[in-house]
Amino acid sequence: MSSAGNSGGQMGLLPEGLSDRLPPQAEASARLARDVIDCVSAHGYQRVMPPLAEFEETLTGRLKSARAQDLLRAVDPVSQRTLALRPDMTAQVGRIAATRLASAARPLRLCYSGPVLKLRANQLRPEREQLQVGAELIGSDSVVAATEIVSVAIEALQAAGVSGITVDFTLPDLIDELAADALPLGVDEIEAVRAELDSKDAGGLAELGSAAAAYLPLIEATGPFHAAMERLEAIDAGGVLASRIAALRAIAKPIGWDITLTLDPTERHSFAYQSWFGFSIFAEGFIGEIGRGGSYTIIHPDGREEPATGFSLYPDPLIDAGFGRTDERRIFLPLHADAERAKALRADGWRTVAALSAGDDGAALGCSHWLDGDTPRAY
Amino acid sequence: MSSAGNSGGQMGLLPEGLSDRLPPQAEASARLARDVIDCVSAHGYQRVMPPLAEFEETLTGRLKSARAQDLLRAVDPVSQRTLALRPDMTAQVGRIAATRLASAARPLRLCYSGPVLKLRANQLRPEREQLQVGAELIGSDSVVAATEIVSVAIEALQAAGVSGITVDFTLPDLIDELAADALPLGVDEIEAVRAELDSKDAGGLAELGSAAAAYLPLIEATGPFHAAMERLEAIDAGGVLASRIAALRAIAKPIGWDITLTLDPTERHSFAYQSWFGFSIFAEGFIGEIGRGGSYTIIHPDGREEPATGFSLYPDPLIDAGFGRTDERRIFLPLHADAERAKALRADGWRTVAALSAGDDGAALGCSHWLDGDTPRAY
Repeated sequence: MSSAGNSGGQMGLLPEGLSDRLPPQAEASARLARDVIDCVSAHGYQRVMPPLAEFEETLTGRLKSARAQDLLRAVDPVSQRTLALRPDMTAQVGRIAATRLASAARPLRLCYSGPVLKLRANQLRPEREQLQVGAELIGSDSVVAATEIVSVAIEALQAAGVSGITVDFTLPDLIDELAADALPLGVDEIEAVRAELDSKDAGGLAELGSAAAAYLPLIEATGPFHAAMERLEAIDAGGVLASRIAALRAIAKPIGWDITLTLDPTERHSFAYQSWFGFSIFAEGFIGEIGRGGSYTIIHPDGREEPATGFSLYPDPLIDAGFGRTDERRIFLPLHADAERAKALRADGWRTVAALSAGDDGAALGCSHWLDGDTPRAY
Repeated sequence: MSSAGNSGGQMGLLPEGLSDRLPPQAEASARLARDVIDCVSAHGYQRVMPPLAEFEETLTGRLKSARAQDLLRAVDPVSQRTLALRPDMTAQVGRIAATRLASAARPLRLCYSGPVLKLRANQLRPEREQLQVGAELIGSDSVVAATEIVSVAIEALQAAGVSGITVDFTLPDLIDELAADALPLGVDEIEAVRAELDSKDAGGLAELGSAAAAYLPLIEATGPFHAAMERLEAIDAGGVLASRIAALRAIAKPIGWDITLTLDPTERHSFAYQSWFGFSIFAEGFIGEIGRGGSYTIIHPDGREEPATGFSLYPDPLIDAGFGRTDERRIFLPLHADAERAKALRADGWRTVAALSAGDDGAALGCSHWLDGDTPRAY
């Protein structure tokens, strides 16, 4: 079994969806996570490290029941209880905010970076272990909070060198809000309307009757942000819709011209705890979202609900596609090379590779240069 | 359940030995790992990221059978096989070197940083999830390789700010080598002699008979390096011992005066695959080792054995004891603060905390300063 060159691990050696990341992708992945964390830290987000595994009830307590099926479980002989590997860190950060940091001042800014493990891969991503890096702003889901979160997410990705970013805004609870008031729907109709909106099926929506047909303009209010917003504004639904429109415009305002903004007002995210605002992040040349975020609600142990806003990035697709590989300056040090000179080269950003024996081959070891006395020479 | 202030998690909320790391310890932990990785990377070690879980057989195949009992297992519905959470990353890196990187040029330098999960805690450390950071030099277990590994381990810890470092050398296979030749022992005597040497019980050793009593001087050859080495040299055991002594002196030679060197020639490490040289690392003020390393053997899928040398650090005890907390400069930005000024402050190393509403309290949010127009002012 020699070097296979595939990034998905060797067939049969590792479980499906669990793989080794090799050089140079492993370093690119670590560097991207570091750049994101450095950026959000500069905006005051403080790092937390929740554990890899928790009691199953603790992890699922704050999540919709469907998500419990998505957990990889282990029986813990110490506690005699079932543990689950975390499939997501946002819920863990919410738990920390609601328990050990319940009395910390709000708004509370926390960030995190680490692996998460899913029971099953999805169609777009064969990996079950994924890197998640994110930031949560706990205590507010205001327009100002959402504006900060979107801005910081974009700035963090740009700091890591990601370009061609698209941000797609959504309004997760819009249908519920409209159905309750301006464009009334029966409880049983809501899910049918949602399904037709998900598939953007205008004909199917019209067939559901006149109440459902009132939602037809939402299908058109999708696409490039400003044009879609104008179509959204043309819908006469008063209060809720008007306030959502004003909020989206406020969040969009500080976003630079180099970001592509789109709107998909009825797009549903899979997180059950999301509230009025959501967004997905895409990068040019990569299939599938590389991040998402929005407003949501944290449930405290005493039942109290607390608003929060945050984002998570899942940068693995970028890394797999070759993002972030830089040319490292790697220099071979022959036997008995001057230690002080080598130290100076490292301080100057070189990576030194010392010979262990006279037979070591610097070029084969990936070095572009070798140290000839005091002088780096190209191979 | 309010902020409890204990670092071990809240009783009952998280499984024993699995806890949340909060600010500022989480950041201190990440910074230490980063400093270590940066240092070993500068010495040419390239990063790999093995998965959190593997098939149980793959993880245990290279380990002594006793270690298989130390695994936290999960049943994987996808593969219908038993997975185990990694209790250690060294064996995973060995697997990578023996499979996907089998044809990469040697010596192969790899490094890693990530969480490992043990089934049970040990007496010194209640944590079952631990951070492991390390570097492996694959293809050599020569004196030159050992010298590089020990030097890089020390340099990495010092780069991370650790002082008061003690390195304790050991010779894991010394008893076997002596028993086979210069100081012969029966196969059944070896384990008894080892046990008495482990407990430094001279009386017990003498009682085992004259063959065993020949090992008495090894008990004395323990402690501060140079004095212990002189006592080791006084043992007349010829070839193997003389070459080991010369090797230890060569490894010790470049180590700075600021490191305390000790010798415990018969200390056994728990890793089955260790060969002629081992070392443990301690830091002043912390109970228990914070790292270990040495030479070992990697078994390739075709049965071929390959020598290797490496080290792993387990820095959690340092973090728990308060190591690495720095004073961050944290400044509060009132509503409508100048965005460009805030950006300049971040570029200058400040962490900015933006007001979301007029009621936000910068001092309560941990800021030492607030931005008054263009000027940072202390609270």
